Amino acid sequence: MSEDRPAAYLRFERSEYDTRITNVRSAMAQRGIDTLVLTDPCNLYYLSGYDAWSFYTPQYLVVRQADAPVWVGRGIDRKSARITSWLADDDIIAYPDDYVQAADKHPAQPLCALLAERGWDKGVLGLEASSYYLTALASDIIRAETPNAQVVDASLLVNWVRLIKSPAEVEYMRKAAQIVQGAMTVATQGARPGVQENELAGDIYRALIAGTDGAGGTYTSSPPFMPSGDWVDTPHLSWRNQPYGNDVQVNFELMACHHRYHVPMSRTVWIGTPPPAVRDLESIAVEALNAALDAVKPGARLYEVEAAWQSVARPRGVSKTSRCGYPIGIAYPPTLGELTASIRPGDETVLQPGMTFHLMPGVWQDGASIVITEAFHVTENGAERFCSFPQRLVVND
Amino acid sequence: MSEDRPAAYLRFERSEYDTRITNVRSAMAQRGIDTLVLTDPCNLYYLSGYDAWSFYTPQYLVVRQADAPVWVGRGIDRKSARITSWLADDDIIAYPDDYVQAADKHPAQPLCALLAERGWDKGVLGLEASSYYLTALASDIIRAETPNAQVVDASLLVNWVRLIKSPAEVEYMRKAAQIVQGAMTVATQGARPGVQENELAGDIYRALIAGTDGAGGTYTSSPPFMPSGDWVDTPHLSWRNQPYGNDVQVNFELMACHHRYHVPMSRTVWIGTPPPAVRDLESIAVEALNAALDAVKPGARLYEVEAAWQSVARPRGVSKTSRCGYPIGIAYPPTLGELTASIRPGDETVLQPGMTFHLMPGVWQDGASIVITEAFHVTENGAERFCSFPQRLVVND
Repeated sequence: MSEDRPAAYLRFERSEYDTRITNVRSAMAQRGIDTLVLTDPCNLYYLSGYDAWSFYTPQYLVVRQADAPVWVGRGIDRKSARITSWLADDDIIAYPDDYVQAADKHPAQPLCALLAERGWDKGVLGLEASSYYLTALASDIIRAETPNAQVVDASLLVNWVRLIKSPAEVEYMRKAAQIVQGAMTVATQGARPGVQENELAGDIYRALIAGTDGAGGTYTSSPPFMPSGDWVDTPHLSWRNQPYGNDVQVNFELMACHHRYHVPMSRTVWIGTPPPAVRDLESIAVEALNAALDAVKPGARLYEVEAAWQSVARPRGVSKTSRCGYPIGIAYPPTLGELTASIRPGDETVLQPGMTFHLMPGVWQDGASIVITEAFHVTENGAERFCSFPQRLVVND
Repeated sequence: MSEDRPAAYLRFERSEYDTRITNVRSAMAQRGIDTLVLTDPCNLYYLSGYDAWSFYTPQYLVVRQADAPVWVGRGIDRKSARITSWLADDDIIAYPDDYVQAADKHPAQPLCALLAERGWDKGVLGLEASSYYLTALASDIIRAETPNAQVVDASLLVNWVRLIKSPAEVEYMRKAAQIVQGAMTVATQGARPGVQENELAGDIYRALIAGTDGAGGTYTSSPPFMPSGDWVDTPHLSWRNQPYGNDVQVNFELMACHHRYHVPMSRTVWIGTPPPAVRDLESIAVEALNAALDAVKPGARLYEVEAAWQSVARPRGVSKTSRCGYPIGIAYPPTLGELTASIRPGDETVLQPGMTFHLMPGVWQDGASIVITEAFHVTENGAERFCSFPQRLVVND
């Protein structure tokens, strides 16, 4: 679909990208979309290989049925596109740097000029209206400058294609799993009285980024979450600049990234002697988690996995209304999930081999809580866990 | 402006928030804006204190002239709002969790319901149309559901107010400066033949997050950038999973964060013996940097600072067309800068005490490059550097 050029750091075989593009074109055809303008960096990476921390300025990948995909981005990122993507040089289009953070012009303008020049400003034009990296302003400009196109919302079109992973993608996730296990070992062994939370956070970051002998880590979509003590029920606050005390609970929610593929894991640590209520929750959480894993098989539906979890937890008095998990794979800041299916009531998505999820049913009851989660891969034989970290409450007494 | 409630982790005196709100209301009045709906997490933090990694789901801060600001966000983040902000409980409004990542509803709907309920859906309504965290979809919903309002773009209104820092803000930046100096020491001492790039990246992260004895670090708006060798001119690629060789240049662009206030610093390391061209650039870069710093004084304009830099660099044959710097302070992913003024030709912004910038004139010539940068604070006496790291090419031979 485009002239070959050696891309030293292309992460997958060229044929795998061809398959991905074919699948996206098929989804476009079903929706009647002629031209798809992508802005989600996950989707740029998935289809073209392009991978750089450049999404804070506008960049686009244009996908059509019979034309090769075109990247539009900033001049200083052109070489990154040549290194990381398989796109032909002629399909890597840079806009001048004075379009960056300017009050009087916007990178959506050269994008629209390109669409017009190639005759692609007609028919049905799909935008990712709920992407973090398509601003309201950019959307308004594109709609105003493509008056002959019918603009539709194509949010998540590519994300749904990403739901089923290839063996090569699963292999990268296995490496991310090794990394997150190493980091969780650092976390669970390090949470002790007198240790500064920020010092432990630094050690966890080191483990996540340095990675293991066989696999280096890179920046993740989200920081480690490690709420503790009176903050244990505030999942999105950062660590504190203070030491852990005694009789303190810490909920570690970590994730590691290898070649942009993420694997998360959560565990609870008790510093001191855990109260009986937390021990009770531990046994419920582990049993329900495995009931849900046992319900995973090709052909089952996601709501059935959630129901399997509830079948253990509800009779034991645990009430949970939020979802039990979500698909994982490629991620960039600010979020880990793929934003498509959910392991929750009503989700009719049919499990298929190659799907990958984070099963993360946090359990909360009467102020007590525990988090023990598993990332898994759907195989012909059911759920294959990415990690082999003990499913238990860690007690540091 | 709202009933007091102890907020254990409020980072500034309550009176400082009052001043900020007053300044924003004044800017709103000048623009005729009745209701301002903020989505940039920097602006939420600046005005309310709210600080959590929750911006991957929609959240809003509504500011009006005679009403107390109102936070609208997700239920599980309500406690974080109570801990980190000064807002009254009645002004912390949570939407149900089934609005999160749902195909059939959006958190902008409960926001608009609130505006209607309080009679705030009339007059001029300002949105941040170029904020990363106001999606095109959210903007469309708000415009559709406030038919009696005149919706205008109020992007950067609060960012411009943030341009002048208080002594308390500068103090946090001094702590971030200590942290980034520690991390740069790790980076420049660690870049040696045989050291894995990802291992060194892990060590740098550890220094950035653990911080110093007096100041803990937290997640930054962007990862460390450390392009090397044949990648040295690709500023936004990640580190590699390979060891450094000999005769390799590494450009470290680091930043540290303390209580969301960022201080960046860049330095070039040569592993081996630097070529004469790089030594030449070093002397030009240092002299031009200090000429620019010397041009900083209250009443001067930003374009004059750039001109002072050019007055040294241009006669020595260095051509530079991109900007020389930008304001710094609060940041969240994905970007460090405040997105307002720039140290570049044509920028008429008048320097005032309390402004804080990153002077970052990367120098490139005939394939050779060097980065030596300084973060500074404008005082009555001119530029006060945040860091005291040697302004030179680091050579590890």
